[in-house]
Amino acid sequence: MKPDRRKTLQSVNESGGLFAIWNHPNAHQITYFGLHALQHRGQTSVGLVSYDDGEFHGLHGNGLLTQVFNRPEKLERLIGRHAIGQVRSATQADREDNTNIQPLVFHFSNQTMVITHNGNITNGLTLREQLEAEGAVLSSNSAAELLIHLMRRKPAEDFEAAFKASLRELRGGFNFCLLTESGLYGAVDRNSFRPLVLGQMANGSYLLASETCALHTIGAKFVTEIFAGQYVVINDEGYRIGVYVEDTQITIEPMEYIYFARPDSDIAGVNVHSARKEMGRRLALEQPAPTADLVIGVPNSSLSAASGYAEASGLPYEIGLIKHQYVGRTFIQPTQELREQGVRSKLSVVVNLVRDKSVVLVDDSIVRGTTIRRLAQLLKESGAREIHLRIASPPLRFPNFYGIDVSHTSEMIAANYTVKELNELFGSDSLGYLSVQGLIDSVGLPIENETGGLSLDAFTGAYPADIADCRESLEASLTPLQEKIRKGASCDE
Amino acid sequence: MKPDRRKTLQSVNESGGLFAIWNHPNAHQITYFGLHALQHRGQTSVGLVSYDDGEFHGLHGNGLLTQVFNRPEKLERLIGRHAIGQVRSATQADREDNTNIQPLVFHFSNQTMVITHNGNITNGLTLREQLEAEGAVLSSNSAAELLIHLMRRKPAEDFEAAFKASLRELRGGFNFCLLTESGLYGAVDRNSFRPLVLGQMANGSYLLASETCALHTIGAKFVTEIFAGQYVVINDEGYRIGVYVEDTQITIEPMEYIYFARPDSDIAGVNVHSARKEMGRRLALEQPAPTADLVIGVPNSSLSAASGYAEASGLPYEIGLIKHQYVGRTFIQPTQELREQGVRSKLSVVVNLVRDKSVVLVDDSIVRGTTIRRLAQLLKESGAREIHLRIASPPLRFPNFYGIDVSHTSEMIAANYTVKELNELFGSDSLGYLSVQGLIDSVGLPIENETGGLSLDAFTGAYPADIADCRESLEASLTPLQEKIRKGASCDE
Amino acid sequence: MKPDRRKTLQSVNESGGLFAIWNHPNAHQITYFGLHALQHRGQTSVGLVSYDDGEFHGLHGNGLLTQVFNRPEKLERLIGRHAIGQVRSATQADREDNTNIQPLVFHFSNQTMVITHNGNITNGLTLREQLEAEGAVLSSNSAAELLIHLMRRKPAEDFEAAFKASLRELRGGFNFCLLTESGLYGAVDRNSFRPLVLGQMANGSYLLASETCALHTIGAKFVTEIFAGQYVVINDEGYRIGVYVEDTQITIEPMEYIYFARPDSDIAGVNVHSARKEMGRRLALEQPAPTADLVIGVPNSSLSAASGYAEASGLPYEIGLIKHQYVGRTFIQPTQELREQGVRSKLSVVVNLVRDKSVVLVDDSIVRGTTIRRLAQLLKESGAREIHLRIASPPLRFPNFYGIDVSHTSEMIAANYTVKELNELFGSDSLGYLSVQGLIDSVGLPIENETGGLSLDAFTGAYPADIADCRESLEASLTPLQEKIRKGASCDE
Amino acid sequence: MKPDRRKTLQSVNESGGLFAIWNHPNAHQITYFGLHALQHRGQTSVGLVSYDDGEFHGLHGNGLLTQVFNRPEKLERLIGRHAIGQVRSATQADREDNTNIQPLVFHFSNQTMVITHNGNITNGLTLREQLEAEGAVLSSNSAAELLIHLMRRKPAEDFEAAFKASLRELRGGFNFCLLTESGLYGAVDRNSFRPLVLGQMANGSYLLASETCALHTIGAKFVTEIFAGQYVVINDEGYRIGVYVEDTQITIEPMEYIYFARPDSDIAGVNVHSARKEMGRRLALEQPAPTADLVIGVPNSSLSAASGYAEASGLPYEIGLIKHQYVGRTFIQPTQELREQGVRSKLSVVVNLVRDKSVVLVDDSIVRGTTIRRLAQLLKESGAREIHLRIASPPLRFPNFYGIDVSHTSEMIAANYTVKELNELFGSDSLGYLSVQGLIDSVGLPIENETGGLSLDAFTGAYPADIADCRESLEASLTPLQEKIRKGASCDE
Repeated sequence: MKPDRRKTLQSVNESGGLFAIWNHPNAHQITYFGLHALQHRGQTSVGLVSYDDGEFHGLHGNGLLTQVFNRPEKLERLIGRHAIGQVRSATQADREDNTNIQPLVFHFSNQTMVITHNGNITNGLTLREQLEAEGAVLSSNSAAELLIHLMRRKPAEDFEAAFKASLRELRGGFNFCLLTESGLYGAVDRNSFRPLVLGQMANGSYLLASETCALHTIGAKFVTEIFAGQYVVINDEGYRIGVYVEDTQITIEPMEYIYFARPDSDIAGVNVHSARKEMGRRLALEQPAPTADLVIGVPNSSLSAASGYAEASGLPYEIGLIKHQYVGRTFIQPTQELREQGVRSKLSVVVNLVRDKSVVLVDDSIVRGTTIRRLAQLLKESGAREIHLRIASPPLRFPNFYGIDVSHTSEMIAANYTVKELNELFGSDSLGYLSVQGLIDSVGLPIENETGGLSLDAFTGAYPADIADCRESLEASLTPLQEKIRKGASCDE
Repeated sequence: MKPDRRKTLQSVNESGGLFAIWNHPNAHQITYFGLHALQHRGQTSVGLVSYDDGEFHGLHGNGLLTQVFNRPEKLERLIGRHAIGQVRSATQADREDNTNIQPLVFHFSNQTMVITHNGNITNGLTLREQLEAEGAVLSSNSAAELLIHLMRRKPAEDFEAAFKASLRELRGGFNFCLLTESGLYGAVDRNSFRPLVLGQMANGSYLLASETCALHTIGAKFVTEIFAGQYVVINDEGYRIGVYVEDTQITIEPMEYIYFARPDSDIAGVNVHSARKEMGRRLALEQPAPTADLVIGVPNSSLSAASGYAEASGLPYEIGLIKHQYVGRTFIQPTQELREQGVRSKLSVVVNLVRDKSVVLVDDSIVRGTTIRRLAQLLKESGAREIHLRIASPPLRFPNFYGIDVSHTSEMIAANYTVKELNELFGSDSLGYLSVQGLIDSVGLPIENETGGLSLDAFTGAYPADIADCRESLEASLTPLQEKIRKGASCDE
Repeated sequence: MKPDRRKTLQSVNESGGLFAIWNHPNAHQITYFGLHALQHRGQTSVGLVSYDDGEFHGLHGNGLLTQVFNRPEKLERLIGRHAIGQVRSATQADREDNTNIQPLVFHFSNQTMVITHNGNITNGLTLREQLEAEGAVLSSNSAAELLIHLMRRKPAEDFEAAFKASLRELRGGFNFCLLTESGLYGAVDRNSFRPLVLGQMANGSYLLASETCALHTIGAKFVTEIFAGQYVVINDEGYRIGVYVEDTQITIEPMEYIYFARPDSDIAGVNVHSARKEMGRRLALEQPAPTADLVIGVPNSSLSAASGYAEASGLPYEIGLIKHQYVGRTFIQPTQELREQGVRSKLSVVVNLVRDKSVVLVDDSIVRGTTIRRLAQLLKESGAREIHLRIASPPLRFPNFYGIDVSHTSEMIAANYTVKELNELFGSDSLGYLSVQGLIDSVGLPIENETGGLSLDAFTGAYPADIADCRESLEASLTPLQEKIRKGASCDE
Repeated sequence: MKPDRRKTLQSVNESGGLFAIWNHPNAHQITYFGLHALQHRGQTSVGLVSYDDGEFHGLHGNGLLTQVFNRPEKLERLIGRHAIGQVRSATQADREDNTNIQPLVFHFSNQTMVITHNGNITNGLTLREQLEAEGAVLSSNSAAELLIHLMRRKPAEDFEAAFKASLRELRGGFNFCLLTESGLYGAVDRNSFRPLVLGQMANGSYLLASETCALHTIGAKFVTEIFAGQYVVINDEGYRIGVYVEDTQITIEPMEYIYFARPDSDIAGVNVHSARKEMGRRLALEQPAPTADLVIGVPNSSLSAASGYAEASGLPYEIGLIKHQYVGRTFIQPTQELREQGVRSKLSVVVNLVRDKSVVLVDDSIVRGTTIRRLAQLLKESGAREIHLRIASPPLRFPNFYGIDVSHTSEMIAANYTVKELNELFGSDSLGYLSVQGLIDSVGLPIENETGGLSLDAFTGAYPADIADCRESLEASLTPLQEKIRKGASCDE
């Protein structure tokens, strides 16, 4: 079967961590440690480009930051007072093609532009086809390159105007960082799905980062978040925040709080660990487990919620699941035959803890359901008397175009089964999710509207932003359960 | 200055994890996953040798198991129904010399012996000199090779007798696994400092492993621990446990419970996580922190103790320190200049949690004191109002010849300072250690003697086993504080 | 100092070997072995792209073919009946940037184009600036990308017309191979500086290659060369050769015969080894060495000429210089101190052969003069009585924009010194070059004009093709000796 | 089937190049370049150990010297005024086992010994069994370790006496280099099968090397060869040559002249290139080819002989076979299917030269016959009218225990077929070998006995040295043709 050309050309959902700094004597080192703090946002490739008096120096590679920069010389070469970088999660196909590793560098006769982004431009394919019809040659299917094309087709005299006008043509969720010889630019989509923060070093240098945890790591001060529809210009005169579109609506991606961001980061002023612990507390109230003996969290992202559940319920919090610390990228997995013999890797149960006990197992969320089903089974085999699954987020039922990378709706187990059905599937004694309102209240953003400043699309199927080219395939693949939810039915019993 | 030849030749303190299995169709795969579960016992090199109808196949390499076996073919080549392996922590010098990577393979005209061990033979140098005087050529300074030499100089007719007689000549702490064409042998020193367990697969195959966590991973049943002065023979007829020496005394290395072993392992019937949590509870009683607002543990080894402290004290347990998950082997560290600018890697504080709070920071133990001092400072900089350090073990004051690899007494900070002095050094508001009796009670081994079945040497300087060749350098380097302790003084105020 | 932006953007002199095949069941393997035979044309990077029913598969990497394809799986993955590849010599800067490794792949909504080339587009910068002014974004400074941009700005209906019209806009020397879903295209500049040949496999499949030696290696039949101003279209109907420009002039790059091509290749019907041997014979007549005892060639490219010189002069041909066979890329070179102690790598003299002898040393050409000077000294130190240098080509005095990669005129030693001065510089007893007419006669192309079908620019400074953007820097850097030559002076005495 | 234990334990035929130097400030660098010049003697592993005031530093690895020392730091670390190294050809099994990479380092309480060797100890298995019976543990099956064991079992007071006495126990062919804290030792077997030479640097330092070509490379002066039954001691007082056995007979391995050594080396005063050229001249007289048009040599080792044949016969010498220069280690070989389509790698014919010609193809020797058969076929396919194979050495008919590594007699094609039969097998028009007397005369060693100072075993089956443990398998595997030869028949017609 021939592959779908449209699919090949569609701009990818770029998931990553961005960092950039202007005018610091150790720009390359600061950027290295900034990216290091953001490594959880992307583990498959790394790029770092510095600018030094007329010349750009870069290194791009596949793997973790520590693997790509495996010798100090590799970093020391990237001299200059300005630097920009990205850590990124790529798809398999992409991984074999080094040309997409960001930041992308574009040399022109009159300037150079170094760009990196995350997110998903939902009208990317439409824009691409328009550009190609005018003779444009796109060397990648990266949204970052799209922006460059849009900018280069506008009058060159006013760079900032071209930047703003081009941003306005984009739909979807995104963060951009763009380094040129004369300044560093940042921009956030009109819903501010993902965070982008401005920080300042002790010496006065300004920087951009995807999360505040990067600021702590490099000893920088938090200045402000870049909010929906805003852009920022950083140059030798300082920084200036502007607005490229008025029609905005803050709907932060809740998976940042639930799973993606690091616990020591704050998003829109709310600390991630604290939000998670509160989700756990709230979950204990909404979904108690009166017969339980102890609470266990799935390491590492669910430990905050589990400790919250334990405190609110008065049950002991136990470290009952051990994550193998040195797993690395495992090239060898147990065969089916070995799995049947009981061979496992990755997670182990503290058998003595759970034997003959009624266990609350807290997980942050369920996507495909594979892990939670396996864990429930593992606990049963280890002698647990009862297993009460408690999920510190609402059921994930609709694709999320800027968030979790799920290519087909059918992969999301809660798009296909009711909660009751899931409980049976998992073999658990009870299954309880946090309610949507519980999520909104736990995060507690100071935004008074019905979504509480969160994007609820993955739970409700109501999309706050224009999903443009993506709508067609969404509609074509709705499951019966999704149809029911959209018509207002509840499937949470 | 010329290096000390005696030092070069002294057998190394071999720290590692052992695994071996007899008569299983997937011996190499089982051993791979067994070693994977033991990776925390050694991260610098790996070896795996299989035996298949007359031929031995092996792979040895530096790095984690997943780095050495970086392609499935590398494992698939190691066919056979019997296999033996080790993961290991080597010193830097050793790391450059591949010849010491265990298991060591010795081919003789009449048999082949594949051997691996951990521990430290304290009379190794004396034995070596005796052997050399008789013309022996030792190709390594490994205690495993020593045992082979001793065995080969005994009459060949009775292999088991030669094994027992040779074991009797050794002093110190050790575990051996030895694979030959006709059987698999294991042995434990007369104090059983470190665990060695016998397990059984569903198909009946017997295996040896350093910790019970390896049994869970491979789906094996626990049969028994090999205790002080015992050896085990596994062959096609099953297994048989014998005694090579009568004069034994169980004194398990307490650092196994405190720090070294995996929380899901049981040692002498006591679960490690439960022991740690109990140490935390007991510590809360012995060393309360009445003004504190919350409890934080140093990830990952102190989290059990911290949750115990929190429960016993009624304080909230918070995830206030984040360990970078993807650190890998970092080749690039912040320079002094960057550190002064506040650049940090490895651990981050959840600033919003600790600001203006009185924090109990629980750590499992203090060796050099570098980390705890840095953490105390980091918490202060993050705005903590008070810092109460609570250590879930007694002060480490004497070298431990089979345990923590500290080459000089002077590196152990509690060998040089009283607790009061340490509190000042760390800049904390209070510092409290668990008492020796508290440790004994928390572990709660069912052994009624004054040490409770634990080796207290690192705390008291009283060595249960013959430290032979090591005594001289120990006596020569005693600190004034160590002298005082040995005379019965308390330095715990 | 700021680097010159124009220099950064100028399209590079791409030196490499091309291979492409249409419609063969083992297209990837044939291309692999075809590129293998062309490895001498480029050793720093390799790319191979196959096309299989709607999907393109590729591998690009730095190093030799055997280093990039270091596991059979890497080749086996590149399935399909059509394939295209290149081996290439990159500059250092380029080597760090994987994005320029050819073939380049461009995906469009309506088609995919995979392109590779060698040569130098002398009006590349002008074309680039024109395209950028129209909003084009060029992702590389590769002439191959330029061609794609030119084609995409022409009406899409007639692909072949767009190809021809775009080729007409280019100046300089080049060969292109272009693979699309519907056919394989090749083209040669209007001077046919470099060879491109059409071959046919036993099963009827047509292919393109840079040299006929690739045909021998893969068992293909020679069909024809693609000559000046021609292009070829290969598709399922067979092949068709067309003409895109009428105004052509065959001036083959003579360095192909002198040094670059493999001895078993034929160019324009003339075998390279035979041409070299004839240059050696002719050199013996033009520049005899009556007092000499023996003839030695500089391995490996000068051995044909040396054996010709020996035969024509009646002197014995000796293997007096040994090239280290296993040099590989040497990371360690003798320091100055070691060199003074006589430490050498790469070439050794057979001392017993040359001691007290008068030696003719034949080299194919002299560029910087470093090697020949070192060899003359080495022979002297080894006891040679007399050294007569004989160069089997005329003095290289002017930059060659499609040939030898010499960035500055000043690096060409014969652009700065007369033959007499060079003889003194090298410390030789005599120095003789082949005359330009001798070169023309030795190659003996059946083309009757004053250059004999060769491009004599490097010897005379008269450029047969439009050097466009390159003229300015050429004129600015002329040496006094170059000025004299251009005015008709001879500096060959 | 169970592998033969005796085979596993038999000491390997160690083929390699040795280099060692005493008391030079750049000992490690000199040794590096010395080994570099000897790389043709072994390409699979490298080891280099230096000694610096009490400490030994080493690096051992698989691959070429340039691959193992792939960063300057790796060499710079090996400080000290004394160094020893080896390049080596290992068998496949051996290659996976790093522990055999020489030099081997043995640390004892009273000294350290670093040893490397080449050759084959024919009574190695017997000696091993004797040692094991006395309790010895051998960690390798290296003859170098055997020597260490023998020495350590002799009284330690007189090191030199122990060295001599141990050497006397060995049978077969060998060269040893042994470095200790107090001196550098070398030794050669009683037949001096392989060369070992003593050289001197300009600063007075003495060194040992396998071939004189290493002396040229490092700028050293030739002092003397170490002859049969001799040993040499180098220390701070200079050098001293002694004799460890009186009963000697010089029988140099002729394959050194024919194939193995580098053309610029001299062995026993005879230059290798000159000997080869003389073999070619003599071959032209013994085996003329009156109808031939030209002479071609198989590159690279047969080029000297081919040029000799051409000169003596008056035929033109042509470079008609091209060896791919950049082959590297090829991981991908043409499949049978591709070979049938004519795909070839490694060697190419200059088709234009040989078409319709009668070709003399000169090869240095024939072992398995695979290459020569393939080349004859290739020349035919390229249009050669006649093919006259001329071999510049006598037929190789018996295993050579110190020379060519042929594991089974059956692999030697001339042990199975007469010359007439071989001509038919190869499809050539004539086949002629050099006679044994022709070989003796061409080398022309100034030794007057019937073998001319050469070991003729491979041609005649008469072994000059005691082949000890190897005799049994030799006798068991004699072919009918070998039996006939031994009885005096000629099979050269």
